[in-house]
Amino acid sequence: MEKTELLYSGKAKDMYLTDVPGVLWAAYKDQATALNGKQKVQIEGKGTLNRQISGLLFEAVEAAGIPTHFIKNWDDQTMIVRQCTMVPLEVVVRNYASGSFERKFHTAPLLPLAPAVHEFYYKSDALDDPFINDEQITALGFADASTLAATHQLADRVNAVLTALFASVGIKLVDFKLEFGRLPNGRLVLADELSPDNMRLIDEQSGRSLDKDIFRHHEGPLTPAYQVVLDRLKGAAHV
Amino acid sequence: MEKTELLYSGKAKDMYLTDVPGVLWAAYKDQATALNGKQKVQIEGKGTLNRQISGLLFEAVEAAGIPTHFIKNWDDQTMIVRQCTMVPLEVVVRNYASGSFERKFHTAPLLPLAPAVHEFYYKSDALDDPFINDEQITALGFADASTLAATHQLADRVNAVLTALFASVGIKLVDFKLEFGRLPNGRLVLADELSPDNMRLIDEQSGRSLDKDIFRHHEGPLTPAYQVVLDRLKGAAHV
Repeated sequence: MEKTELLYSGKAKDMYLTDVPGVLWAAYKDQATALNGKQKVQIEGKGTLNRQISGLLFEAVEAAGIPTHFIKNWDDQTMIVRQCTMVPLEVVVRNYASGSFERKFHTAPLLPLAPAVHEFYYKSDALDDPFINDEQITALGFADASTLAATHQLADRVNAVLTALFASVGIKLVDFKLEFGRLPNGRLVLADELSPDNMRLIDEQSGRSLDKDIFRHHEGPLTPAYQVVLDRLKGAAHV
Repeated sequence: MEKTELLYSGKAKDMYLTDVPGVLWAAYKDQATALNGKQKVQIEGKGTLNRQISGLLFEAVEAAGIPTHFIKNWDDQTMIVRQCTMVPLEVVVRNYASGSFERKFHTAPLLPLAPAVHEFYYKSDALDDPFINDEQITALGFADASTLAATHQLADRVNAVLTALFASVGIKLVDFKLEFGRLPNGRLVLADELSPDNMRLIDEQSGRSLDKDIFRHHEGPLTPAYQVVLDRLKGAAHV
């Protein structure tokens, strides 16, 4: 397979068309951004780590019967995926209060949220990805009610798989962001990536962050923590 | 009936206990605030106008069988109401895009939203009344799922009554804010006030605002517009 035209250059990935129709080349970048792209640096090795972690997690999710865009890993920085029409929403799933949720509601840090809380954000750089509720989404035509219901349900299933997987390797899955898309046949699938760039992960033993909060909070180098996540996942029984 | 102890001094009303248990004295103030209280002025006559408009609208809502805290009008600035345990949410109902919605999503002005969009805001001065979704509300215990469902339903019924009433007097009900409370017997009722302080009203003929936007946008005196609203409602067939 060969990559052809650059389709889209995102903050963390470049998406290329390939010589196979309907199949994309997802090149994970060494770039880290925060504050919705306003802060940006190059971190050598991050793309490779995220590609590997994302590959393992997509395999785990697929193994649980959840449809995704994942086809296969290709090289160190590349994953081959199905082309989707993206639902223009970020779906945040929170098992514990942290980040913007903790700040917004002045909750205790890591307050358990059960059942998990879902939040939608409308993907729009121009509007700064605003927090949006279900009725705003349907009124503005960003997704219909059945897509929203399916999204809620898939997000819960992904959460169950990932929470159990991370728990089995001593990591608490605090929260994460998902994106969904539709295949040409109309099927809704999990898309985008599954990496510590889009999750909060806490080592159960030390209580330390193993995710992009290290970068957001200037707490030292990112890649050793991502390497810990990758090594633990590689050792997990059911990956 | 006599008012006794001041229970709560809000931006637009002072609530007093009375010599009758479970019955409150709601004194509508001549104060106008904007930007969540950061901007504040006295406007003579506003309290009386809002008490009269609110009285007419509560009567119309009650006549439609929707339970409210309203008991009766008392004097020019005072309404007698049932004491409630308030649900700590502001419920915004939008029939057309305007205000923060229009700004947030860069919509066309007065874009019709059908069905109407509901938004919840958590009432907290310390947190600046944050926009909140249903799952955040239930996870944080601000209201349970059945209260939320009842709130959605009551808000729609209030919307149907008020939209029809205002349409009958040539006024477009763009959006409005409601608050709900529970009576000692557990019944959920519409509470707070129903006035142009908490609604966007547009004269169908002239397209001019007849609500607090006049104050927010420094478009001249407020009371003549509120007087128009009151006079029209007094002339409405079914009030």
